Amino acid sequence: VSERESQLVLGVDPDPAALWPGLDQRAGGGRSPRQAAGEAVLAHCRALIGATAESCVAVKLQLARFEVLGGTGWSVLEQVAEHARGLGLLVIADAKRGDIDVTAEAYAGALIAGLDSPFGRLEGLGADLVTVNPLMGADSVEPFVRAARAAGAGVLVLVRTSNPGAADFEDLELAGSGERLWERVAAMVDELGRAGIGQAGLSDVGAVVGATQPGHLLRARELMGSAPFLLPGIGAQGGRVEDLAPAFAAGPAGGLVSASRSIAGAHRAGGGDPPSAARGEAERLRRAAWELSRRVLQAG
Amino acid sequence: VSERESQLVLGVDPDPAALWPGLDQRAGGGRSPRQAAGEAVLAHCRALIGATAESCVAVKLQLARFEVLGGTGWSVLEQVAEHARGLGLLVIADAKRGDIDVTAEAYAGALIAGLDSPFGRLEGLGADLVTVNPLMGADSVEPFVRAARAAGAGVLVLVRTSNPGAADFEDLELAGSGERLWERVAAMVDELGRAGIGQAGLSDVGAVVGATQPGHLLRARELMGSAPFLLPGIGAQGGRVEDLAPAFAAGPAGGLVSASRSIAGAHRAGGGDPPSAARGEAERLRRAAWELSRRVLQAG
Repeated sequence: VSERESQLVLGVDPDPAALWPGLDQRAGGGRSPRQAAGEAVLAHCRALIGATAESCVAVKLQLARFEVLGGTGWSVLEQVAEHARGLGLLVIADAKRGDIDVTAEAYAGALIAGLDSPFGRLEGLGADLVTVNPLMGADSVEPFVRAARAAGAGVLVLVRTSNPGAADFEDLELAGSGERLWERVAAMVDELGRAGIGQAGLSDVGAVVGATQPGHLLRARELMGSAPFLLPGIGAQGGRVEDLAPAFAAGPAGGLVSASRSIAGAHRAGGGDPPSAARGEAERLRRAAWELSRRVLQAG
Repeated sequence: VSERESQLVLGVDPDPAALWPGLDQRAGGGRSPRQAAGEAVLAHCRALIGATAESCVAVKLQLARFEVLGGTGWSVLEQVAEHARGLGLLVIADAKRGDIDVTAEAYAGALIAGLDSPFGRLEGLGADLVTVNPLMGADSVEPFVRAARAAGAGVLVLVRTSNPGAADFEDLELAGSGERLWERVAAMVDELGRAGIGQAGLSDVGAVVGATQPGHLLRARELMGSAPFLLPGIGAQGGRVEDLAPAFAAGPAGGLVSASRSIAGAHRAGGGDPPSAARGEAERLRRAAWELSRRVLQAG
């Protein structure tokens, strides 16, 4: 983050019906719909990442968009991750997986550093950070933390998400303490991360905290003093960079600001060709977040 | 269930380090570790399903085990699903996905009936049932319900899982009502399922309720009168068929009894060749569940 002066995470969430124009979108030619869509998605992702990489510190790859392309999708996902790494970006696998111990180990292997097998090493995606769903409890999160820690990677646990439905369960008040459910999840994140705090003071166990509810950020930072926050919901979902100050109290990398549709679709809102519009919006967000983080750290 | 006189779900959870012996497990031959593992996993799954299909009503495919094989894995997953369907079995995609609206739609398309795109129809896995993680709230579950209902498929929401860590969050008591969190999730399942109750009186929105905590089953059935329950945790995780009676109060298909390692690994516990041992254990579980369900329904 310091090196690139950027907290901006480019959300890569390629909807086959909303790819940038000018890419090859023809079906047919002996290709299956999956293959044709996969080629177009790959071209789109490369163009999007190429246009905005200078303003970003990471890409967040939405696995659902690749999973819907079947086996082709995983190959495209790997190529997109490789392209992003080649441009110096970290790779966040937005997978939101969560399962019992042996299953969580398999998911962690798939997404992070691979797994040994009698057939040789099964390669992983090589993600630097993976989002994890904590509903099933600490024993479903720990295998991800172990795999990430061994690989020098990290985990981002869903704590308070950016969608309206987050209020249904995450915001429920607990008996006795009066905490919200998400605050209890935050306490687990803080605990799991204590053994993984690095030189910059940040842990390898972070939290997803939606940027759409800035009121939660201050409390989240109180509960998780060392966790990097991934802050989705900027732009299309209504969140604003200006409201994210509490995240940066933990340092410049305390808040990773994620935007997807507002960057890839900037030309629809403001005109211009897609790469230029995306580049402009990414740079605007980068600067807003970086300057905000500097103000917070100077004031603190 | 009635036609096959079986509530047994074969959990297909292929650990590359614990495949049945006698399958081709050599690396090399110009194949990548993923390809070699994929071929062996496919052979294992086919053998396992072939040996036990007569005693089962469905297979539950653990997606993590296929995801760790990359693009090869999705292709193997599709072939395993096709093999199971060819033997008359329902296919449960144990995916535990959960995400915001547009993302949930993409996952539902990938796992159930596919999605339209400018490149033609993107095929889905064709699952009959998909497991879904409800942490992010009703708006993250509804896209799965819509896609499943349109396809004549169903959704199984994680309500009270079978792992020890389930107690961390799912069992937390809520302020005011004194409900547990999982009971609140159960209420959502009941509500989402009301518009999807079929001729047998069961809904297309079901619940995952771990067989390891039979004390929860009676309460779960009170809260979700029409939901089919998927009951994992039999065998390796310690659950017993005999404790599952409350599930069957909703009808013979009210409880789908899932076992993975206890069937695939039956030869380790009781000797014999793997297919015969698996067949024997599957038939034992089928009969125990079927007879229990008949007793419950006669008594009720």
